[in-house]
Amino acid sequence: MLGGSAVHFSLAASFFDVVHVVGPVGDDFGNEEYAVLRARGVETDDIEHVEGGKTFFWRGEYGWDLNERVTLDTQLNVFADFEPKLSEASRAADVLFLANIQPDLQRRVREQFADARFVALDSMNLWIETARDSLIETIGCVDCLMLNDAELRQLTREPNFVRAARQVREWGPRVVVAKQGQYGAAMITDEGFFALPAFPLETTVDPTGAGDCFAGGFMGYVAAHHDAELDHELLSSAMAYGTALASFNVEEFGVERVARLTSEEIADRVGELRRMTRFVEKPVALRG
Amino acid sequence: MLGGSAVHFSLAASFFDVVHVVGPVGDDFGNEEYAVLRARGVETDDIEHVEGGKTFFWRGEYGWDLNERVTLDTQLNVFADFEPKLSEASRAADVLFLANIQPDLQRRVREQFADARFVALDSMNLWIETARDSLIETIGCVDCLMLNDAELRQLTREPNFVRAARQVREWGPRVVVAKQGQYGAAMITDEGFFALPAFPLETTVDPTGAGDCFAGGFMGYVAAHHDAELDHELLSSAMAYGTALASFNVEEFGVERVARLTSEEIADRVGELRRMTRFVEKPVALRG
Repeated sequence: MLGGSAVHFSLAASFFDVVHVVGPVGDDFGNEEYAVLRARGVETDDIEHVEGGKTFFWRGEYGWDLNERVTLDTQLNVFADFEPKLSEASRAADVLFLANIQPDLQRRVREQFADARFVALDSMNLWIETARDSLIETIGCVDCLMLNDAELRQLTREPNFVRAARQVREWGPRVVVAKQGQYGAAMITDEGFFALPAFPLETTVDPTGAGDCFAGGFMGYVAAHHDAELDHELLSSAMAYGTALASFNVEEFGVERVARLTSEEIADRVGELRRMTRFVEKPVALRG
Repeated sequence: MLGGSAVHFSLAASFFDVVHVVGPVGDDFGNEEYAVLRARGVETDDIEHVEGGKTFFWRGEYGWDLNERVTLDTQLNVFADFEPKLSEASRAADVLFLANIQPDLQRRVREQFADARFVALDSMNLWIETARDSLIETIGCVDCLMLNDAELRQLTREPNFVRAARQVREWGPRVVVAKQGQYGAAMITDEGFFALPAFPLETTVDPTGAGDCFAGGFMGYVAAHHDAELDHELLSSAMAYGTALASFNVEEFGVERVARLTSEEIADRVGELRRMTRFVEKPVALRG
């Protein structure tokens, strides 16, 4: 079914600003697939159609608790020989998200955005295992690393989030976000720590793409604030929008739920998240 | 070293109210151990000394990321034949915590507190595996179940927290708390969901007892509000105090850190937790 980092990300981010999606597709990516993106106003001019090619393909299996997954098949297909050539319109964007793909390729895209105001990057165990040095070099060129919790540990060889984030920040990024699946997400910036639980759902149908929707909500919120300082406070709110978008994505298979989402639903869920994490103390006399 | 649910709990709860600790000890529990409890004002009259006996003993090993642990040795020792006989002073308490032990034993203590205002219970995989029916019967007699995340799943055979909590609430308790280790804790009451991350620490020395300290902070906060309604808002603040107490406990081995904690440190950490989970939105025009 339709999926992939760029697709999930674009749909989620489309609620906040115009998204230019960049990447190659094959003959199996047709009008129906384009229509899903265009219906949400996503700019598809930089999607490169490779004649006779097949689109990137991933297949995996989730365990009983949906927090662990096993990759059964990854086919790079048209991504294997992809050379990103970005249009002027794309290069004018001031916020850039490098979705999960080979880190050399991410770097070649990054280099075309000299003036970007905020650049974030996702990756996965495949690249940590096969291209760690290149990945660390690419991480050095971005403002924000956004990784799954387990992959952040694998990359930094450090189980403690505070220490893992410090290691990443020594490589370059000033912001580190750990996506923790059903437990939510945590962030460290120059100004400290922030975390939110995942939105509690009775039924999680398909966690695939949740991390990309999180990134789409997060980066979309950042992009929507062109003139604001991208400080801890703004990025904390971005975490809330990321969490909201991710929670909708897992309610159904593929992109179905996010594709028909409304602004009101997003705003309501962010409001609920606020209530679910807020505590108002009654005074207590501690017995020191 | 000195440890055990009741000890960790009592020390943590001692910052909020007078704690009466109930349970048996052996000859290896001497003046030094009593002194740690008494220094924090814990009432030890209901600790029963079994002549010639050995105190309950647990030994385990943590994995690389400290979130998984393996029990290497559990010796019930003096607990094997324990018959709880509570003093009048203990029975006058209006808040009761049934720390992790054989569920029949927990029930026999529960029965001596007919008028308790709030009763919570902890348990573990050993009892889920060997005494599940008795455990569920005991759960039916309490207001709040407080379990490790993984054990809540094991008990309810349900990986989803919302559904697991619904199952538990059908058994009796109106409040369900899942302790999620480094990810924090989540709660469901009649009024909905609440969650907090764990306090971020650079170094976690020893997670043993963190759950009991969480319970101590939580129940202590509840006990300190004798006249308040025990609603979602009050219990949410209790979660924050539980989280704070647990975070101190893991900073050092055994009970050392909590034994010398101050009221100011607790209040500061709760304040930090509030800042670390608070987000203040800038307006955003969503593109529905």
